[in-house]
Amino acid sequence: MIEVFDLAGIDPEHRFSPYCWRTRMALAHKGLEATFTPWHFGEQDRLPGAPKTDKVPVLVDAGRVVPDSTDIAFYLEDEYHNGPTLFGGPGGEAHARFIVAWADQTFIPALAPILAPDVERFVRPGARAQWRKVREKRIGMTLAQMRAAREERVRGLQQVLAPLRRTLESQSYLGGEEPSYADYAVFGGFQWARSVSRIELVAEDDPIHAWREQMLDLFDELAREATLGV
Amino acid sequence: MIEVFDLAGIDPEHRFSPYCWRTRMALAHKGLEATFTPWHFGEQDRLPGAPKTDKVPVLVDAGRVVPDSTDIAFYLEDEYHNGPTLFGGPGGEAHARFIVAWADQTFIPALAPILAPDVERFVRPGARAQWRKVREKRIGMTLAQMRAAREERVRGLQQVLAPLRRTLESQSYLGGEEPSYADYAVFGGFQWARSVSRIELVAEDDPIHAWREQMLDLFDELAREATLGV
Repeated sequence: MIEVFDLAGIDPEHRFSPYCWRTRMALAHKGLEATFTPWHFGEQDRLPGAPKTDKVPVLVDAGRVVPDSTDIAFYLEDEYHNGPTLFGGPGGEAHARFIVAWADQTFIPALAPILAPDVERFVRPGARAQWRKVREKRIGMTLAQMRAAREERVRGLQQVLAPLRRTLESQSYLGGEEPSYADYAVFGGFQWARSVSRIELVAEDDPIHAWREQMLDLFDELAREATLGV
Repeated sequence: MIEVFDLAGIDPEHRFSPYCWRTRMALAHKGLEATFTPWHFGEQDRLPGAPKTDKVPVLVDAGRVVPDSTDIAFYLEDEYHNGPTLFGGPGGEAHARFIVAWADQTFIPALAPILAPDVERFVRPGARAQWRKVREKRIGMTLAQMRAAREERVRGLQQVLAPLRRTLESQSYLGGEEPSYADYAVFGGFQWARSVSRIELVAEDDPIHAWREQMLDLFDELAREATLGV
């Protein structure tokens, strides 16, 4: 059985990491069962591969330890190549690298200052000071400043999302007619948002809104039915 | 013989449109010969398909008129499917849509205010006032303001380029081991820059710099040997 170390909130059923959601969706896409072991900020010493590995998700499959959501996706595609493809062949795989990089380098950094003020209360009290210090340093603002700038940041996010919107005007998913790992890489950010906050990131008439609804429907409403913190 | 209406400067050999460069590289990739007919801003009535079509590139192939660089790329892939693939199959094609949308919606809009002050002198005097009016309105600044903000914009461009940089850290091209249309869609912007300006967009030790050199080498140095305005 595959095991995934998965970020949890104070409620162990509350799983809100955008990177862990990528892995959860990828496993469902491949039709693979897994146990999702709750892991909390500050529990670095509990991770397989520690201290080198200090972040989740970490996947363990028959003794092999695979950290990093992107490496996990490529591992699953190679190891379980008879299952439904996550990338749609070598051309799809090469281009997906850019979409994942965009999610990592552009989308999630644009989301982080919007969501961090809401995430804080899901971090266990003993780990909260350290969690806060790392986020405030990385983002370059205090949580209070992030909260004050939030509406402006949501407006700015619309321009960040323009390539996603444009793509979804001409096809149902980033993967085309079916979702691919590129969809899960981006969707992870939206699932993070709905897991920790009531803030609405996109308008109801935005093609991204319709796509997100479709993503929530996948795999028997896997993401829709997840335990939310709000 | 395929004909492409291609943006030219005052020197008819100076071809500097980022979108026309995409088409030129795509034709070379497919091994297709074409004539590139110079076209200038203000000559809307000369375009096949006018007045509905008012921008270049426009491709004409055995009487069929195909405007829009993205539509041209998909047309070439379908019509000349026996030639080298531009997209690497359906998975590659679906994901390439996002990369092209990123180039259109994020990268080129970030480049435009950096380059527009240098482009003006390549527009024929009779069309210059209208050209300037449209750009200043679209970008929301005067050309003088753009010129003053340029160094800051080049610094800001580095964050815009982060997903491209990250991708090129793990593979030679956006297409993987070989260039794909996704590479041409992005490279068009860099070729636009070197065709009109001496400004340096990326540092010499940036993986994007090395990639751009490789792109300039393709097809017997097609882009490297092009007539520049500077």
